[in-house]
Amino acid sequence: MSEPTITENVGVNGARNTVAAGWLNNCWQVAALEEELGQPFIARRIAGQPIILFRTEDDVAALEDSCPHRRVPLSVGYRADNEIVCGYHGLRFNAAGACTRIPGRNGPIGNLRVRRYPTISRWGMIWIWMGEPSLADPGLMPDLAWLGSDSWRSVTGYIHMTADYRLINDNLLDLSHESFVHEGSIANGAGETIGDYPVTVTSDGRVLWAERIMNDVAGQPAFAAYLPGRIDRSQRAVYMAPGLNLTDSKKSSRETDRYILNRTLHLLTPETERSTHYFFASSRNFNIGDEAADREMIAIAQRVFGEDKAMLETQQRVLDERPDLPMPGFAWSVDKAPVQARRMLDKLLAAERVDPRAIAAPTSIIKS
Amino acid sequence: MSEPTITENVGVNGARNTVAAGWLNNCWQVAALEEELGQPFIARRIAGQPIILFRTEDDVAALEDSCPHRRVPLSVGYRADNEIVCGYHGLRFNAAGACTRIPGRNGPIGNLRVRRYPTISRWGMIWIWMGEPSLADPGLMPDLAWLGSDSWRSVTGYIHMTADYRLINDNLLDLSHESFVHEGSIANGAGETIGDYPVTVTSDGRVLWAERIMNDVAGQPAFAAYLPGRIDRSQRAVYMAPGLNLTDSKKSSRETDRYILNRTLHLLTPETERSTHYFFASSRNFNIGDEAADREMIAIAQRVFGEDKAMLETQQRVLDERPDLPMPGFAWSVDKAPVQARRMLDKLLAAERVDPRAIAAPTSIIKS
Amino acid sequence: MSEPTITENVGVNGARNTVAAGWLNNCWQVAALEEELGQPFIARRIAGQPIILFRTEDDVAALEDSCPHRRVPLSVGYRADNEIVCGYHGLRFNAAGACTRIPGRNGPIGNLRVRRYPTISRWGMIWIWMGEPSLADPGLMPDLAWLGSDSWRSVTGYIHMTADYRLINDNLLDLSHESFVHEGSIANGAGETIGDYPVTVTSDGRVLWAERIMNDVAGQPAFAAYLPGRIDRSQRAVYMAPGLNLTDSKKSSRETDRYILNRTLHLLTPETERSTHYFFASSRNFNIGDEAADREMIAIAQRVFGEDKAMLETQQRVLDERPDLPMPGFAWSVDKAPVQARRMLDKLLAAERVDPRAIAAPTSIIKS
Repeated sequence: MSEPTITENVGVNGARNTVAAGWLNNCWQVAALEEELGQPFIARRIAGQPIILFRTEDDVAALEDSCPHRRVPLSVGYRADNEIVCGYHGLRFNAAGACTRIPGRNGPIGNLRVRRYPTISRWGMIWIWMGEPSLADPGLMPDLAWLGSDSWRSVTGYIHMTADYRLINDNLLDLSHESFVHEGSIANGAGETIGDYPVTVTSDGRVLWAERIMNDVAGQPAFAAYLPGRIDRSQRAVYMAPGLNLTDSKKSSRETDRYILNRTLHLLTPETERSTHYFFASSRNFNIGDEAADREMIAIAQRVFGEDKAMLETQQRVLDERPDLPMPGFAWSVDKAPVQARRMLDKLLAAERVDPRAIAAPTSIIKS
Repeated sequence: MSEPTITENVGVNGARNTVAAGWLNNCWQVAALEEELGQPFIARRIAGQPIILFRTEDDVAALEDSCPHRRVPLSVGYRADNEIVCGYHGLRFNAAGACTRIPGRNGPIGNLRVRRYPTISRWGMIWIWMGEPSLADPGLMPDLAWLGSDSWRSVTGYIHMTADYRLINDNLLDLSHESFVHEGSIANGAGETIGDYPVTVTSDGRVLWAERIMNDVAGQPAFAAYLPGRIDRSQRAVYMAPGLNLTDSKKSSRETDRYILNRTLHLLTPETERSTHYFFASSRNFNIGDEAADREMIAIAQRVFGEDKAMLETQQRVLDERPDLPMPGFAWSVDKAPVQARRMLDKLLAAERVDPRAIAAPTSIIKS
Repeated sequence: MSEPTITENVGVNGARNTVAAGWLNNCWQVAALEEELGQPFIARRIAGQPIILFRTEDDVAALEDSCPHRRVPLSVGYRADNEIVCGYHGLRFNAAGACTRIPGRNGPIGNLRVRRYPTISRWGMIWIWMGEPSLADPGLMPDLAWLGSDSWRSVTGYIHMTADYRLINDNLLDLSHESFVHEGSIANGAGETIGDYPVTVTSDGRVLWAERIMNDVAGQPAFAAYLPGRIDRSQRAVYMAPGLNLTDSKKSSRETDRYILNRTLHLLTPETERSTHYFFASSRNFNIGDEAADREMIAIAQRVFGEDKAMLETQQRVLDERPDLPMPGFAWSVDKAPVQARRMLDKLLAAERVDPRAIAAPTSIIKS
C-alpha cells in the first residue's frame, strides 16, 4: 500500500448536529472559566460538538476533540508543549488545529487538520464562536464592562444543568418563581401576594427587560448579614438571545440609607439538546475587598441555582417523556417576559436557518 | 399581553397511554395502602399516569401529577391545608383537581383543573378508577369482606416488581412453581412428584379457580412454628381480571386435629407496561391477636414474593429483548389455569377497546 | 385442556441475530477457559446468543440458555447431576439439550429440546461452534500446538471489552500504538521515531503477518526483571479471521547472548455487536517452572490489555454516536495491516452470507 496523499478534506470529521433546532451558532458563548485552563487541557461538549480547550502562550485553542485517524478523542491523549498528542497513535495537532506530525509516515502531512473554533479571553471567561468562523468578529462580543470596573467586585462560577437552556431562560425571566423555588434563600415571603408586584416588560427588539418593585418587604435570608431588616427592593431580569441573562437586584434598608446592589450574569451555553453549561458572574457594590464575601457570593449563587436545577431537571424529564406538551400550557402576566423572549429567540433561529451567515448583533443590555 | 381567558380545555394535560394494550381501565385497582397516606402526599405512576395522592378531611384525592402551566409534577411542590401548591410558580389545586389560585393573575381562573381520578378507601387500601370517571360505581368494588371479619387477622404490604402484571398473574396461577421458586420457604419438597397432585381448574366465566390437594406431605418451612410435622394440604389459586389473585391454603396436622388457614390476596396494579405495584393482604385464622405473628406474616410474604420477583424480573428482561417469543412456548397441565386466565383477560381488554364504557363487573371470588 | 403433543419444533427458541453483519459463524471460537468450568455452570452471551456451559463426565455442554416453556434463562435454575433444571417449573435438560423431565406432565415429552452448540476442549480452553452444527469438524481447529509443548510455558486469562472485536483486531495489527498506549509498560520509548522501524506486511490470503525489527532500543519496563539493559527486538503480529491474533516478541540482550521470547495469543469472541470476550494465552520460553513468573505474565497481560481497553472502549463510544464516520478516516503505513485484515474478514463474511455453509478453513499461523 503506497502512502496516500492526504487531501484537505480527509480527516476532518465534519460538523455534528450543527443545525439542532434550538441553537444559535453565529455568536460568542462562554466555553470555560479562565481558571479552568490552569489544567493542561479540558474537554467539554458545546452545542453538541466535542471540544478540547487548552491555553498556549498567546492564545486559547478550541479544537474538535476527535482524531481524524481512528476517531478517538484527542483528550484521551496528552499535552506536549503547545500541542496535543493523540494517545492512540501519536498524531500531533497544534493550536491552529493543524497536524504537525504523523509517527511512521514518510509522505507529506498535507493540510490535515481538525476544526478550530475561534476564541476570545475576556472578563475571566473563554468565549467560543461555534458558527461560521469567518464571521467571528470580536466586535460582536456583548458589552459586560462592569465586570472590569472598580465600582464592582465580580466572582465567577459554574453549574451544570441537565435541562435545555431555554427552560433556564424561561425560569430566569419569570421573577415570580423566586417566591416558591427560592423560599428560604433569596425570596421575600411574597408567595401569596406576588400579584401585588406587577412586572413591567419592555424590549428594544434585541434585549428584553422585566422589572418589578417590592417596597417594604422582608429582607432576603441569604443577604441578611449584609443588609438586615425590612427593605425596599427592585428587581430587573434582562435577556439577550440566545443565552445571556442578567438579574439586577437593588435592596434599600427601610431604617438607614444603606443600599446594596447585586448584579448576576447567567451565561447559558448549550451542551446537548437537553443539557446546559451554566456560567455565572456575581457582581456586587458592597464589601468589595472582602474575600469571605467573595466566597459567600459564589456559595449563594450555587445554592440558589441548585434550587433551580432541581426544578428544571425535573421539568426536562417530563418533557423528555411528553415532547408533545405545549410549553407553557397556558400563560398569564408572569409569562409575558419568557414568552416574548422565546419569540425573540425563535426569530433569530429562523434567520440563521434561512441564512447561515446571519448574525444577531449584540447591543447594550444595561438600561440607563 | 392581555390576560388570556382560561378555557376548560387549556391546561389539562390529557391522558397518557390510556389505551396500552394490556390495561383494563374501567375497574377499581389499588393505588396505595391506607398507611402510606400518613404522609402529606405520595406520588406514584399508575397505568402509565403520574398520580399524586393525598388525604383530606373527608376524602382521598388522586390527581394528575402535572401542573398544567409549566408541566412540572405537583409532587415537587408542597401541601397547604387541603390543597397542593405547585413548587414552581405557586398554582394551587384542591382535592377536586380545581385550580384555586394563580399567583400574580388578575383575571378569572376559570375552570382550570387537573384530572381527578375517583377513589374509594376500603379494607386498609385506597382504590382508584383509571377509566371513564362517570362509570366509577362503588358497587363495582370486588367483595373482600373477610378483610374486615373478626374470624381473620389481616395484614397488608407492598412490593414493586419490574415485570408486566400479566407475568405475575401467570405465576400465581401455576401452583407448580412453588416447588422450584419457593423451595426452602413455602414448598413441600414435592419437586419431583408434583405431577402426583393434579390441578383442577374451574371457572364461571369471570372468576377462575385452580385447586390441588397434597396429603401427607412435609410441612412448609415458613409455617413450621405454627404447625409442625407432616400435613395434609390443600391450595386454591383464584383469579379475577385484571389483577386480582387470591391464594387460599389449608394445612391440617397429621398428628393432631389442628389446622391453619392462610388466605393471601395479591392485588396487581400496573405501573408501566413492564412494571407493577404489587399490594398484598395476608389473612390468617390463627394467632389472631399476636402482633409478632402479624410481623412474621408480612415478612414471609415479602420473602416469598421476593423469590418470585427475582424470577419474574428476569423473565421480563428476556421478553424485553425478545418480544416476538410466544409465551408460553408450549403448554401442559400446569399451564391450564394461566392460559385460561389470559383468555379471560384478553376478552375483557378487547371489549373495552371496542366500547370504552364496557365494564367487567366483579363477582364473588370465594367458593362456597 | 388436553395434553398437547410436543413436536420437534415447539420449544426451540430459534436463533437470535445469527446474521449480524460482523460475525463469522462457521468457525471454532473460545467460549470459556477450562478453569471456569470448575463451577456447576456458567452463563455467557456469545455472538448475541445466551449460552449456558457446563462440564459433564465426558463432555462440555453448551446449550441455549433459555427454557422453551416460559423463556427464563436455564442459568437461573440449578445443576442436578449431569443435567440443568429450570428454576421456574423444574424442566430438566441433559447435556445434549434434550428435555428429560417435565414435572406434572403425563404425556410424552417428545423431542423437546434446546439448541446445543458443538464444543471442543483443547489447550485449556473450551471452543464453541456457533454456525451450522453439521459442519463442526474438529479438524477445523486452528493449530496452536506450542500451547502443549514443553519448550514453552503458557498461562491463560480473560478480559472483557465493551468494543467490537474488529476494533481490537485493528489495534493488535497496528504495532505502532505500543509507543503511545503502552508507554511505561511494554513500549521502548520509540514514540517519536517509530517511523524508523518500518513494518513489513505479508499474507498468504488466509493469514496476515506484520513484522518490524527494532535494534538497540531501551528494554521494555514490564520485562526488565527478565532481561535488563538495551535490547535488539523483533515483533510479529499475526492475524487469522475472524478473531485470532498472535503477538510474537523476541528480545535479545545487547550485552549477553541471552534472549527471551514472548508469544501472546489473543482470541476474540464477540459477545454482542459492541462487546467482546477477550481470552488470552501468554507463552514464554524463559522461567518455565517459575510460578511467580506465571502470575506476573498474567498480570502484565491484564495491565497491557487494560490500557488497550480504556482506549478501545472510548473509541467504541465515539462510533456508537457517529456510526457514519469512516474508520480509519485516512490511512498510512501503520494502517496497512489492519486495513488488509479487514478486507480478509469482509471477504469471509460475504462468503458466509452468500452460502451459510461456507467455511473459512484455518491454516498454519506460525511462519517457519
